[in-house]
Amino acid sequence: MPYIPLDENLPGITGLLNYRQDTALPIRELTQILLRGDSTLTEGERELIATVVSFGNECRFCTAAHSAAADRLLGEKDSSDKVKNDPAHAPVSEKMKALLEIARAVQVSGKNVTSLMVENARLEGATDLEIHDTVLISALFSLYNRYVDGLASVTPADPAFYERLANILAEKGYLPSKDRYAGLTNA
Amino acid sequence: MPYIPLDENLPGITGLLNYRQDTALPIRELTQILLRGDSTLTEGERELIATVVSFGNECRFCTAAHSAAADRLLGEKDSSDKVKNDPAHAPVSEKMKALLEIARAVQVSGKNVTSLMVENARLEGATDLEIHDTVLISALFSLYNRYVDGLASVTPADPAFYERLANILAEKGYLPSKDRYAGLTNA
Repeated sequence: MPYIPLDENLPGITGLLNYRQDTALPIRELTQILLRGDSTLTEGERELIATVVSFGNECRFCTAAHSAAADRLLGEKDSSDKVKNDPAHAPVSEKMKALLEIARAVQVSGKNVTSLMVENARLEGATDLEIHDTVLISALFSLYNRYVDGLASVTPADPAFYERLANILAEKGYLPSKDRYAGLTNA
Repeated sequence: MPYIPLDENLPGITGLLNYRQDTALPIRELTQILLRGDSTLTEGERELIATVVSFGNECRFCTAAHSAAADRLLGEKDSSDKVKNDPAHAPVSEKMKALLEIARAVQVSGKNVTSLMVENARLEGATDLEIHDTVLISALFSLYNRYVDGLASVTPADPAFYERLANILAEKGYLPSKDRYAGLTNA
């Protein structure tokens, strides 16, 4: 039961973005630029950063949503599963492993990022911008996770809900559109 | 020494917002709406929310900047001092005390907000929108604190720096402008 009145057909973040649409717009725009804009990281890799941060914050809605989005974009489920549960053996590049370690540090505190972590990412080929974006994506999901859980928004139990949401995130991205959540009901 | 090359005349968040201006714009817009837009919370009260979250995250740059902004807007320094160090005796309304308790919970985790905290805020007169905005401002500063510290941006030691910054934040707000940081150097 959310702490404020939200549209019951719009669970998780979707009801919050609908509740205050003027603040939702820049949140959506920032997410679109970071997760779908031009980048030397793939969209799937960027969804994995969102996944590990949401998992670290134990935000069930965001973890399920971005795991499903990563799976949809990567075409497999092993990466999202392993980055959460067995990061050393995740089938991702060594550069991504180093960036995901930075993401996990940021999730706890910005101060937990060490120069050794950054140096390690650079040694594996990460650019300044990739390091910047990893920190900012992690910071953004630290916002999302708190927004979703701080107002006790609803977390659907049915995995099919997250597959429908992942299709929208993969095909349409994060910007608002008139029929943004057509076909996405918490049923 | 920042982990990525930032303009050395732009410490703290200012160099980061300058480094990637396309992501900076929606961050600035979101902040402007939440901290300077129409609200039944005063600008000073909203800066106090930013202050307690930044203080909880031990982000020295953000704590100093938003304490100074709150002081400038409230015309006194006691509120920003007490909400950090002795919240029970802060000279703020009971409603603000209840909202600041929610903010402190969000800073740790969205899951730490309880229905009792929300009920208490309502009993003190807080509206749904004020509760929403308190959570979202707290979530936004959870982003800022991680962005600033996660990339090891520079924290000026001179209190005069934060007074100059507070004047800009009070008089011009958070949106970009051509001479945004004119007169604001880390000297």
